[in-house]
Amino acid sequence: MSLVLEVARAAKEAAAALATLPTGVKNGALVGMAGALRRQEAMLLGVNAAEVARARAAGHPAAFLDRLALTPGRVRAMAEGLEAVAALPDPVGEVTGMWRRPSGLLVGRMRVPLGVIGVIYEARPNVTADVAGLCLKAGNAVVLRGGSEALETNGALVALLGEAAAAAGIPKGALGFVASPDRAAVAEMARLDRYIDCLIPRGGEDLIRAVRAQATIPVIAHEKGLCHTYVDAAADLAMAAEVAFNAKVERPGVCNAMETLLVHEAVAPAFLPPFAARLKAAGVQVRGCPRTAALVPGVVPASDVDWDTEYLDLILAVRVVASYEEAVAHIQRHGSGLAEAIVTADHATAMRFLREVDAGAVFVNASTRFTDGGEFGLGAEMGISTQKLHARGPVGLQELTCTKFIVLGDGQVRRSAT
Amino acid sequence: MSLVLEVARAAKEAAAALATLPTGVKNGALVGMAGALRRQEAMLLGVNAAEVARARAAGHPAAFLDRLALTPGRVRAMAEGLEAVAALPDPVGEVTGMWRRPSGLLVGRMRVPLGVIGVIYEARPNVTADVAGLCLKAGNAVVLRGGSEALETNGALVALLGEAAAAAGIPKGALGFVASPDRAAVAEMARLDRYIDCLIPRGGEDLIRAVRAQATIPVIAHEKGLCHTYVDAAADLAMAAEVAFNAKVERPGVCNAMETLLVHEAVAPAFLPPFAARLKAAGVQVRGCPRTAALVPGVVPASDVDWDTEYLDLILAVRVVASYEEAVAHIQRHGSGLAEAIVTADHATAMRFLREVDAGAVFVNASTRFTDGGEFGLGAEMGISTQKLHARGPVGLQELTCTKFIVLGDGQVRRSAT
Repeated sequence: MSLVLEVARAAKEAAAALATLPTGVKNGALVGMAGALRRQEAMLLGVNAAEVARARAAGHPAAFLDRLALTPGRVRAMAEGLEAVAALPDPVGEVTGMWRRPSGLLVGRMRVPLGVIGVIYEARPNVTADVAGLCLKAGNAVVLRGGSEALETNGALVALLGEAAAAAGIPKGALGFVASPDRAAVAEMARLDRYIDCLIPRGGEDLIRAVRAQATIPVIAHEKGLCHTYVDAAADLAMAAEVAFNAKVERPGVCNAMETLLVHEAVAPAFLPPFAARLKAAGVQVRGCPRTAALVPGVVPASDVDWDTEYLDLILAVRVVASYEEAVAHIQRHGSGLAEAIVTADHATAMRFLREVDAGAVFVNASTRFTDGGEFGLGAEMGISTQKLHARGPVGLQELTCTKFIVLGDGQVRRSAT
Repeated sequence: MSLVLEVARAAKEAAAALATLPTGVKNGALVGMAGALRRQEAMLLGVNAAEVARARAAGHPAAFLDRLALTPGRVRAMAEGLEAVAALPDPVGEVTGMWRRPSGLLVGRMRVPLGVIGVIYEARPNVTADVAGLCLKAGNAVVLRGGSEALETNGALVALLGEAAAAAGIPKGALGFVASPDRAAVAEMARLDRYIDCLIPRGGEDLIRAVRAQATIPVIAHEKGLCHTYVDAAADLAMAAEVAFNAKVERPGVCNAMETLLVHEAVAPAFLPPFAARLKAAGVQVRGCPRTAALVPGVVPASDVDWDTEYLDLILAVRVVASYEEAVAHIQRHGSGLAEAIVTADHATAMRFLREVDAGAVFVNASTRFTDGGEFGLGAEMGISTQKLHARGPVGLQELTCTKFIVLGDGQVRRSAT
């Protein structure tokens, strides 16, 4: 039996027991896991430092090494994340609604765990703790397959988290780890639909596409984050500048950063020249439509490709639009469905944008950078989904469950119409 | 451009307008469609009678002809179904929860339509009206592909329903119909992921499997309905007999009928002999385990295959179990996840069964035959899902929507921790 199969079968077996575990046992395990992280910080940092050194020697770029590296602050953040999830209400067993039927039956929906969640990720070791915490709290077993460059760090993390979980009464196998650098393990995992109920790949566009192409298991993920901010004719221009600057500059390399700015023609002459100057001072290259170029001398002309490009960098596409409708049409055509924002002081326009724009998260007068499970109050997140079925937007505890109908009777039988 | 592609593209275009249509317009359309059905009953019955005659001449079996046939009662039931869906609350725009974050942001979830629903079905023409009503009410466009033997009846239905919908302000293309007997249309439709957001096949196991194997669109369906009723040691035996008899006999050919009866050994000697006699009198063949055979002389011995067989017929597999745990283990191993029932007078056992059994619908003291969108109060149903992601159990209006996050701010920007 292959390693992946062995881990997945053990997870499936554990899932049945996990599904009905009392909330107190699960919370105790999460708190215990947090404590173990705090106590073993020095060991983790040691293992990680050696792994980072090997990755540096192998020529990995600085951004990669940064994602791979643990620091005392990052270990503390993992522990705090587990404690935050422990403090959230248990989603399992929640009855989201119940009603009486003319037959006398009480019919309701009850939240239950999905079963086994497979997670395929790259270098960040904090994913290991975040995912373990969310999955266990929602009553799911997990099969983790991290990047091969983080194998030692993830192995040490899973060993200590699993030991703490087991000591608190979590069944063996619940925290599965595929300790193999072999790329074939990912393909094998993506087809284990008998054992894994849902697959969540976290990483770059290429990883997500590869997993989707191979998977026979339902996948929850986003491939791309192409977010817009639309500065409406009725916008408070000072607010628009703050919100748009934050959306582009605060952390340009992440999926919820803005890639395209749309500005209503009525405010473009007042808004764009000073805003472009501020962007330039922050090192942002602007690629503008002809009307932008007319207002801001010296911008790079935008080509058609720019409207569909996720730069993940200090580059911003800017387009002047003639109307609200033109802005929304641009967003619907070019957006990736992750997050879209409007800045406007007009209530009716704000309500219309909320209703009409089709994306995982729709913002009024706030930065798209808030698109995050923690910022939304979900405790932590498993990633962000741009799909429509089952999970959309940040994936938290609720999205790691499904519902079943429960029906309470006192002997009812059915008499059909013909 | 192929017919399927043309229909799907028109549906996609209509979906954008449908998504924000006022509730009153949608309800007006459903009521108008019901009126058109009532007014054109004679025309529909005429078209259908000719089609049934051709199918009879082609040698189709009686059960098939029965599914294909319209009667005045069935036309009335379609009209009443549309009116019932019109009377349900509009799921679109419902905010299922909203909370304030420390950042001052209001974050909530809003229900929105899925987009375009593809439905592939067999002979029953009532599916055409049911599906059209549910999809339109939930703001979705639909692409219908019915069985080739019902092409004339479905074509007439779609023409009159579409005309009534258009008269009420529903955008053209919202009610798409693939008027082609060509089997290749199904395969083509299953791969139009650019235009269709979700595929719902309704029909036998073979149809569902074929669609799943070809689809690049997420599929919602059930392949099989293998339902159990467990008569607990603490059951009221008179109630158990009524519930189990109904689950097997009332309509044995449907997915929510019982296929296997499990009886606790403490009550088997009192329960099984008279119940088996009642089954025999109703023409039901019993296939029993050795302990059943010892209590009921003359039963057919059950083989291993029986525990995994969906008879859809007057045949029942019966097994005596030594404990509640043995019953649940049998259900988890052999059930198809559609519906499972316990009969017990013991409250703790009932609560445990609700918690522990993993299925789309879990019943206490009622017949599994109630597993139905109408009986559950969902108005009507698009089918029943045995999957876990997105929809589980009867698929109603809520399952034809997804949610998006909505975020209301007053200029918030994000400051990250590092």
